[in-house]
Amino acid sequence: MTGPHRDNRSPHRPPLEVGDVQLEPAEITELLDRFLTDARRRKIDEVLEQRTYHVVSVLDGIYDRGNVSAVIRSAEALGYQSMHVIESQDHFKEANRVTQGTDKWLDIERYPTPEPCIETLRRRGYRIVATELEASTPIADVSFEQPTALVFGNEKDGVSKQIREAADERMVLPMVGFAQSYNISVSAALAFQHVFERRRAELGQQGDLTEREYDILRALYTLRSVDKPERLVRGLRNRDLDNPE
Amino acid sequence: MTGPHRDNRSPHRPPLEVGDVQLEPAEITELLDRFLTDARRRKIDEVLEQRTYHVVSVLDGIYDRGNVSAVIRSAEALGYQSMHVIESQDHFKEANRVTQGTDKWLDIERYPTPEPCIETLRRRGYRIVATELEASTPIADVSFEQPTALVFGNEKDGVSKQIREAADERMVLPMVGFAQSYNISVSAALAFQHVFERRRAELGQQGDLTEREYDILRALYTLRSVDKPERLVRGLRNRDLDNPE
Repeated sequence: MTGPHRDNRSPHRPPLEVGDVQLEPAEITELLDRFLTDARRRKIDEVLEQRTYHVVSVLDGIYDRGNVSAVIRSAEALGYQSMHVIESQDHFKEANRVTQGTDKWLDIERYPTPEPCIETLRRRGYRIVATELEASTPIADVSFEQPTALVFGNEKDGVSKQIREAADERMVLPMVGFAQSYNISVSAALAFQHVFERRRAELGQQGDLTEREYDILRALYTLRSVDKPERLVRGLRNRDLDNPE
Repeated sequence: MTGPHRDNRSPHRPPLEVGDVQLEPAEITELLDRFLTDARRRKIDEVLEQRTYHVVSVLDGIYDRGNVSAVIRSAEALGYQSMHVIESQDHFKEANRVTQGTDKWLDIERYPTPEPCIETLRRRGYRIVATELEASTPIADVSFEQPTALVFGNEKDGVSKQIREAADERMVLPMVGFAQSYNISVSAALAFQHVFERRRAELGQQGDLTEREYDILRALYTLRSVDKPERLVRGLRNRDLDNPE
């Protein structure tokens, strides 16, 4: 055990379940790829090239579901595959009007309290960087060389006590007017873009999936792109069993 | 007439009205500065250092007043002093909960249709850059050397036909996921931050007010920082008239 294993960052542990069967990612892609349009296949390739688990986001007790949904949409648009949501009170569903369905492309993990979320982030090797309003490091001076979890706190009190204590760093966004804060969905978008632009400048691109992460996501995106994948898979497998080579 | 005059960018034409008297900016500041707390005076100085008219924003027919308010708050927080609002239908007031009162620090000009807005921008020497969803220049490749008006269109149809035809350039924000667009308040914030960071990298700071713009804004911020400025000004001037040196 010498530090976190690189392949520990995906929350998925194949084989993956499709209806009542368990399949490896490559099997899913092989079975279902024929049902994708060319445009969709190209889109999946493009998206995968720009996906990362290197920086993930954590929403810590955000009340307003419109805000959660807006953050999901921005994260998805800028390539951040993994999001952790510490539920504020009741469980809730995102406002679909605002996510525009983008939540289905992300790995969204939910927790009832901060502790199991912190535990998961540590196990996967993330530094925890909490966004704060004051007395913190400007985002431009924060290093994102190590895998980093960006935490956004709730509208009223910011991040929770537990996250604040666990945080390796506290960062602020640029703010040079009379305004005391940004709307939470704006904060998250600004942080996402800042890191995105830095990664593009330093690495040439946002995306950095391992081969395994790539294969898993390709299978999942394919599953989510076809209608009734469980039925398709069952039909194809039955046919193969009836007609062995 | 060889190109726009540099001092034409402020919408204010002193003398400024304070109640029923007309005063030059320096007179206002001199009269009312004594009523500012040290903290407020320092804050005004800091804000003025980071204010610009070089890049301004235009909201072209945005329906949702929460969105308009969120854009105002982000613009204010990142130093963009001037905003032009082409009203979509009825006139409306910003949602104060969302602006958090930041609208009072900006120069917000309103127009019933795109034409007079375009006219004003041209007269003040701005290039018009419309944000679009496709077939446009990536924001990273747009030059902001000349004074630039960034136009954000409405949630459904984007920018108006008139703005599209008048635009010198059409730009897109980075988007590398399945999402088809950003929420309008997120778009604006991302564009503001991108330009802000580039100006800081290239010029060292966002702010670039002329001495005259600085004096006018200092007077306006002072007026907006004290309680009942009209009454204070009247009282002080009467005292001065009663006690000539």
